[in-house]
Amino acid sequence: MDIEGIQDFYPDDVAHCYGCGKLNEHGHKIKTNWDGDETLTHFTPKDYHTAIPGYVYGGLIASLIDCHGTGSAALAAYRIEKREPGTLPPFRFVTASLHVDYLKPTPLGVELEIRGKITEVKDLPFGKLRRRKKVITEITVSANGEVTARGIVVAVQMPENMVK
Amino acid sequence: MDIEGIQDFYPDDVAHCYGCGKLNEHGHKIKTNWDGDETLTHFTPKDYHTAIPGYVYGGLIASLIDCHGTGSAALAAYRIEKREPGTLPPFRFVTASLHVDYLKPTPLGVELEIRGKITEVKDLPFGKLRRRKKVITEITVSANGEVTARGIVVAVQMPENMVK
Repeated sequence: MDIEGIQDFYPDDVAHCYGCGKLNEHGHKIKTNWDGDETLTHFTPKDYHTAIPGYVYGGLIASLIDCHGTGSAALAAYRIEKREPGTLPPFRFVTASLHVDYLKPTPLGVELEIRGKITEVKDLPFGKLRRRKKVITEITVSANGEVTARGIVVAVQMPENMVK
Repeated sequence: MDIEGIQDFYPDDVAHCYGCGKLNEHGHKIKTNWDGDETLTHFTPKDYHTAIPGYVYGGLIASLIDCHGTGSAALAAYRIEKREPGTLPPFRFVTASLHVDYLKPTPLGVELEIRGKITEVKDLPFGKLRRRKKVITEITVSANGEVTARGIVVAVQMPENMVK
């Protein structure tokens, strides 16, 4: 897949996410891609993304884990259906739950590496005739080669009626 | 307590949090206060804090829960010690873990109400001679009177060596 990230394939009407939407001018615009069987993104926090001076704000770490989780879910869904991202219908996931363990302070001023492992993909019943996918991703956030936070994201395929 | 929030009493060297620090010009500056036995804050997301159009970004919701959790922990610690915020030594907590269940989409364009219930306060051993507090807070995020997300924050008193 010769793209920066799965987020490049989110349809325009659902590409405004503050964390990863290509159409959100104020947002973080993270890009989630495969790295072998894991998913990978990088992000360098701004100097004002502070927890206490010198360390990265935990809410930003949660945000990166969140968006990398929904992006990983979309990647996994395409791969399981043996389809390339960009083929129709598109996959777009939302977060059902998010868990973050802050293992140690994350230093500011360096690029963070965010890695995901897909641990579960399921088809859930949704209405009488349809199903939608649920994907669980386990995520690590590393700085200077050291894991500083771990997360778990449960993502589900976006209900069609969420688009206004 | 006749203040806007416990964050007003964080010492200046730890008052730069992007979510709640009074000294972070770019941040959200949330203010956590008591409302009876619960803790309360309000926040109105910006129009660019989008998940998909019309709804609030989940990473922002996680951030609000996170900072309201550490603020609630500080309030609870003062109350248990029967001390007023502002008396010394100050209480400042960091997040050990954060869990968020996104129950339904949170509409953009309205003020959110974030409420906390302190469910556990413990003294943990820390080194040979000292102890530090651990506080668990259960948090709801509501829009238009409806709970849209629930969170649990496990906060621990900040290690002194975190301040650079």
